[in-house]
Amino acid sequence: MRLAFHLLGAPEAHVRELAEAIARLRTEIVLCEECFDLTDTSPCAICRDPKRDPALLCVVEEPADRAAIDRSQRFAGRFFVLGGTLSPIDGIGPEEIRIAPLEARVARGDLREVVLATNPDAEGDATAHYIHERLRPLGVRVTRIAYGMPLGGDLEYADHVTVGLSVAHRRVMD
Amino acid sequence: MRLAFHLLGAPEAHVRELAEAIARLRTEIVLCEECFDLTDTSPCAICRDPKRDPALLCVVEEPADRAAIDRSQRFAGRFFVLGGTLSPIDGIGPEEIRIAPLEARVARGDLREVVLATNPDAEGDATAHYIHERLRPLGVRVTRIAYGMPLGGDLEYADHVTVGLSVAHRRVMD
Repeated sequence: MRLAFHLLGAPEAHVRELAEAIARLRTEIVLCEECFDLTDTSPCAICRDPKRDPALLCVVEEPADRAAIDRSQRFAGRFFVLGGTLSPIDGIGPEEIRIAPLEARVARGDLREVVLATNPDAEGDATAHYIHERLRPLGVRVTRIAYGMPLGGDLEYADHVTVGLSVAHRRVMD
Repeated sequence: MRLAFHLLGAPEAHVRELAEAIARLRTEIVLCEECFDLTDTSPCAICRDPKRDPALLCVVEEPADRAAIDRSQRFAGRFFVLGGTLSPIDGIGPEEIRIAPLEARVARGDLREVVLATNPDAEGDATAHYIHERLRPLGVRVTRIAYGMPLGGDLEYADHVTVGLSVAHRRVMD
């Protein structure tokens, strides 16, 4: 309703522009042939960017996760969007997400490291472990994003598994 | 008020017991002479426990943080309670918390590692870095609890610094 009232009060040209953009959404936005992210040109801007390390691949569940990692400005490699996580209870097995295309991507043999950045929850963890097993025969280095205390967190109020991982995965200071 | 109504309805013996326990609080609870945690016998049960690694020391801000790390069951060493963090804006410098006693504790030379488990916020981080500098001449290994994604977190909604640290501190899967 807020959106409807906003549009009723907006300049006509602005509203027509929005309508056209929405209509173009489903015709002009495609999946990148390399990483399966949403893009208007395939390969997408990230896959075409020569400043990004082509031997470092970050596997995420959805385009929104790719965007979150990009915002952090701490990852200068490329991405691969799985399109979901394994979830046997919902009937989502390896065939329902892009496990085979990922395997084919890694089998090209040009990667130094695959970073598994599925979410730190039960499905994301199970999916990471499954992918790790599937990629094992290919001999690539497979890493997992770190679990630990979030910035600004408080040990006293954090869940005890997170506190435990934060202590178990402590790092040498330098 | 809830507590008052609860006590008015509780058995008299129960109320008297609570009153006596509160009265004993300030006479029987002391600081452990080793770790400065709250205890009814000094040294405290943790400092006396022969199953805990005496060469591994975890530095925390407050007794509640010691309890949080203990609950995680991932740390089998001993503790040292600082009694706060450095906070120049509030006039809390190294003399106001137990930096010198910590230094003296480490100078005994019987520690293999000091884990800095101050909170993952600005004051906790600054305090960890200050302690690291103070302990540097003593040559002990100094580590910091891990930053990363909390369990059950979601990359899409996490703050970008935490996402970035989680990617930067990724771990090899095994």
